[in-house]
Amino acid sequence: MTGKAVVIALGGNAILRHRETGTAEEQLANVRRAARQITGIAGSGYAVIITHGNGPQVGDILLRNELTKDTLPPMPLDVCGAESQGMIGYLLAQAMEEALREAGLDYPVATVLTRTLVAGDDPAFENPEKPIGPFYTAMQAKRLADEKGWRMVQLPGQGYRRVVPSPRPVALVEGEAIRRLFSAGVVVIAAGGGGVPVVAGPGSTLRGVEAVVDKDYTAALLARLVGAGDLLILTDVERVALNYGRPDRRDISEMTVAEAREHLAAGQFPPGTMGPKIEAAIGFLEAGGGRVTIGSLDSATAALLGRAGTRIRR
Amino acid sequence: MTGKAVVIALGGNAILRHRETGTAEEQLANVRRAARQITGIAGSGYAVIITHGNGPQVGDILLRNELTKDTLPPMPLDVCGAESQGMIGYLLAQAMEEALREAGLDYPVATVLTRTLVAGDDPAFENPEKPIGPFYTAMQAKRLADEKGWRMVQLPGQGYRRVVPSPRPVALVEGEAIRRLFSAGVVVIAAGGGGVPVVAGPGSTLRGVEAVVDKDYTAALLARLVGAGDLLILTDVERVALNYGRPDRRDISEMTVAEAREHLAAGQFPPGTMGPKIEAAIGFLEAGGGRVTIGSLDSATAALLGRAGTRIRR
Repeated sequence: MTGKAVVIALGGNAILRHRETGTAEEQLANVRRAARQITGIAGSGYAVIITHGNGPQVGDILLRNELTKDTLPPMPLDVCGAESQGMIGYLLAQAMEEALREAGLDYPVATVLTRTLVAGDDPAFENPEKPIGPFYTAMQAKRLADEKGWRMVQLPGQGYRRVVPSPRPVALVEGEAIRRLFSAGVVVIAAGGGGVPVVAGPGSTLRGVEAVVDKDYTAALLARLVGAGDLLILTDVERVALNYGRPDRRDISEMTVAEAREHLAAGQFPPGTMGPKIEAAIGFLEAGGGRVTIGSLDSATAALLGRAGTRIRR
Repeated sequence: MTGKAVVIALGGNAILRHRETGTAEEQLANVRRAARQITGIAGSGYAVIITHGNGPQVGDILLRNELTKDTLPPMPLDVCGAESQGMIGYLLAQAMEEALREAGLDYPVATVLTRTLVAGDDPAFENPEKPIGPFYTAMQAKRLADEKGWRMVQLPGQGYRRVVPSPRPVALVEGEAIRRLFSAGVVVIAAGGGGVPVVAGPGSTLRGVEAVVDKDYTAALLARLVGAGDLLILTDVERVALNYGRPDRRDISEMTVAEAREHLAAGQFPPGTMGPKIEAAIGFLEAGGGRVTIGSLDSATAALLGRAGTRIRR
């Protein structure tokens, strides 16, 4: 390997896509597509760390827990998040090993179950706004709010949904382990779903919390941890766009941090989708990162080589 | 740390006990008891690797999948096993960190999601006999056998249950990663539930299989991998016994491999419970291992120090 290193952040929606039913076979087929792209990147001389979202997967796990709550005690969100890391990490590891071997690359692959330290006084805890899990009727929503103290929001025309805090990641509890494996040439899969969020509890303990950490912020943290110059965020659009969804839409191939910040302030990047990716990119670059590329799963190799996607530089 | 190293295998039943409902809180309370014992062992100078069973936990995950199969596609057993590794690994890591910090030990803790290579021609695949998941009625059992090709067995007075192959572990796919972390002083949690079983597929790929690997055999493999002299198997009995459940029951404090083999041949250790532990012990010692200790969770430290449990030596 050369000294080039990249953290690749894979959207949970790229693994379990809308309109798919979510079978293990479908998800494995999708991670195989991702794995071939990532192998292309590894083959071009990059050391890679892979992280991934888990929204649709943890949604399914939460729904199964909810629907069977009269038979088995439902697991809290932090435990469900850990389960989703096990599930997706396994499928990704299988697919990566397959793709690497097919390409004649014999790098070992390993998934590190990761906890992400967040601040107990992060303002997100006062203002939960990340929707998670199944939709509910007004009556169910009221009961869950009363019984469990869940914060619920009404989504017009869709029903009610639980919202949880999305605090910023401060550190990766397994950071040292990840760094060591990465240094040893292992293709590490880590911090799935942004990592299971934990806060410093009484004494020096860590306490799991029912929250979700945005995987793109965690990906930026991972990149700083291992000193990767590149952060590659893979999502379901080919390029970052201005005026998205409007007739005057304009795709961006390159922009500076200053331009990104300006467009963000102008409301070009919605909070739930592109916004966090751009914010994570800005944070990474301002902390000394070299380059952020945002692109689609199927153009990942081309994007990193500058032939697709959107590049953001200092 | 001194050169002493021990692999500690924790029963899945010790984490989710009979008569408990299986809430996350109950399981966390149980792993905290385990973590305090393991910390006592780490504090006495042993480098430790922790592995664990997952029977009750993967049983709950399978049951949730089964009960919601009309809403969401059920995940296959290998994926459910990976989920259970995520779940238990997370709870164990939280509890271990807490116990280590309380004891003033600042070893890092990390869970490696582990796949276990098994032979595609292992005779177990011709003779599935490990019961897994929920109980079914005769009619349900017939339907599942027809629809999914599952092998079902009738358990007198209890109903029908799926049985799956339990092949022997050949190697740990993440072995090199585990070894590196262990050498670096990390308290590694690995190969939960015996590891997700995979077989060599077409070409050089790995294919997940619906089977379960006995965690005690995998624990012995882990011990050989890291060169640990000690294997400590924690279960729900204080000592290995002869004539178990009979008036002339006799607890064993010490035995040799030859004696263990003799008692095993005489049918003293039932296949589903103590048998695999004794076989794993024999295998480990005959491959050069130093000592196997079998004892209860709450006497773990005492057992390893020779004041409780059963020791088996060459």
